[in-house]
Amino acid sequence: MKYIGVDIGGTNLVSAVVEKTSKGYEIISKKSCATSVPRPKEDICEDIIKISLQALKEAKLPLDEIKSIGIGVPGSVDVNAGNINFATNLFIENWNIKKDIEEKINNLNYLEKYDFKPSKNYIKVFIENDANAAAYGEALAGAAKGFDNAIMVTLGTGIGGGIIINKKIYSGANFAAGEIGHMVIVKDGLKCTCGRNGCFERYASATGLINLTRQKMQEFKDSKMWELAPNLNKVNGKTAFDAEKLGDKAAKQVLEDYIAYLGCGVANLINIFQPDCIIIGGGISNQGENLLSPLRQYVNKQTYNKNLKVQTKILKAKLVNDAGVIGAAMLGEN
Amino acid sequence: MKYIGVDIGGTNLVSAVVEKTSKGYEIISKKSCATSVPRPKEDICEDIIKISLQALKEAKLPLDEIKSIGIGVPGSVDVNAGNINFATNLFIENWNIKKDIEEKINNLNYLEKYDFKPSKNYIKVFIENDANAAAYGEALAGAAKGFDNAIMVTLGTGIGGGIIINKKIYSGANFAAGEIGHMVIVKDGLKCTCGRNGCFERYASATGLINLTRQKMQEFKDSKMWELAPNLNKVNGKTAFDAEKLGDKAAKQVLEDYIAYLGCGVANLINIFQPDCIIIGGGISNQGENLLSPLRQYVNKQTYNKNLKVQTKILKAKLVNDAGVIGAAMLGEN
Repeated sequence: MKYIGVDIGGTNLVSAVVEKTSKGYEIISKKSCATSVPRPKEDICEDIIKISLQALKEAKLPLDEIKSIGIGVPGSVDVNAGNINFATNLFIENWNIKKDIEEKINNLNYLEKYDFKPSKNYIKVFIENDANAAAYGEALAGAAKGFDNAIMVTLGTGIGGGIIINKKIYSGANFAAGEIGHMVIVKDGLKCTCGRNGCFERYASATGLINLTRQKMQEFKDSKMWELAPNLNKVNGKTAFDAEKLGDKAAKQVLEDYIAYLGCGVANLINIFQPDCIIIGGGISNQGENLLSPLRQYVNKQTYNKNLKVQTKILKAKLVNDAGVIGAAMLGEN
Repeated sequence: MKYIGVDIGGTNLVSAVVEKTSKGYEIISKKSCATSVPRPKEDICEDIIKISLQALKEAKLPLDEIKSIGIGVPGSVDVNAGNINFATNLFIENWNIKKDIEEKINNLNYLEKYDFKPSKNYIKVFIENDANAAAYGEALAGAAKGFDNAIMVTLGTGIGGGIIINKKIYSGANFAAGEIGHMVIVKDGLKCTCGRNGCFERYASATGLINLTRQKMQEFKDSKMWELAPNLNKVNGKTAFDAEKLGDKAAKQVLEDYIAYLGCGVANLINIFQPDCIIIGGGISNQGENLLSPLRQYVNKQTYNKNLKVQTKILKAKLVNDAGVIGAAMLGEN
């Protein structure tokens, strides 16, 4: 059975044809274009369909072969209604994307211009929050494959979360669960964009790491970090990792502090969920074992389940950019 | 259909016959005895059966009428195996309580001494952690009735947690999820028994409230709290609430601090789970609206979902002591 998965990113729209086989999930073809926001939602809708049909064409498949289309959206969605409530990065509010795409993708006259015929079976559209879709992708085909319960922690500008329970997306009321970045770990700590103080993401996101790096650089004017980032605007999520490899002590301290913040939040999630695994994604996760090995050591000291049968595994996300389209594609599986 | 629910407490063993009717769940009869620990598990086993059969006798029911027996255990359990891994308060380690009780409750010779006959159908025994059983009871028949997703927060010596997802107990790996008391909210804060620093329960449990009360009393020697508790050993979870009603300013500060800690953890749980409701149980919850009303105000300022469709309800536990037996009884329903 084949599916189309779409990932609407702030920068790129990606659409992939995904096949579920006895062996797993495979991307048969993939097309993308710039999201180019802000622009009218009608244009975004058109481009989603265009790249999806391009992907189909490349795979030499008719629409008849597609069971459903799934879309991951960076924002607040109403999964049942197929509505994007608001997606700040897309400058979109209150758009029933499901209705608009279903109307077009099943319409004979509309499809003519792309040289496609409608499917014999009505093609349904499903939507999800993009972090949930990515977590679902990792659960189906990535690092969390085979596990019942998994939490995905994406270390980006903020910290995104996706909760998989019994192999399904858990999205709670408002389809808005998983805001693990806005779990306070430092009461009365740094001000967060959400209005709270001391949120996990203020310390353990890529932004948090950059802030810790800058602070330490100002403290240690002889740090090798200054060679890698001659001014504070050049600091990024790699600076401290790279300097630590050069034997820089200040960088080592940055990373110890960072691991302690990240480990604090991860240990909280383990005590709350006792998941089978925690999947770490986002740019910082590219550090691989340089990040994960000290993180595991820290978390091991902080959690209950070190004496229990099942140890929550802390793993790197595996599918990276493909998690979103695979997870989105499979929304319509059941 | 009728069930037996058992709650093994540190102080009392309670057994109840619970009937599921079209209207809901009703306790038909209930018996209890002292847990009297430490003592051999064989004796505890015997008493569980004795009070269960007493409850049945009072309800004038034969064992044939009972579908299954469920037991809530204050400790770490293996639900599948029916094994108590460890229950510190009971001084018990590694006891397959399911096996022992099933062997007796289905045994003709054994039952003779209690003047009972075995059921025509083999009676199965199910076990759960007691906090999970209580949360399940509240979900079936109490404050969380009718909701899909609920988190129970029990404010006692520590903070217990029970997670209900899609109307079922979520217990994760090791059947040990829901340790919300050991979510750090004050990084590098007060030392906790679990080995971490700054856990939610160090601040927001009854013990946490008592500590806050004692601190403030030492700061304010003229506080009315000294009239209610002439020495610090007399301080309990009510002291600050009672003094605040008398217009005591120091007590008001204690409660503001306490609500901020409790609210911080509750807001974390809402951002993570977006549950339909948070059920507050334990001794402190007897303060009712004196606790819940300021808690709701605090949480409302701290959470995302104030702008969303569904507002997580913060409610007082309803079944109090019966939640555990009702939840335990219904473990064998499906």
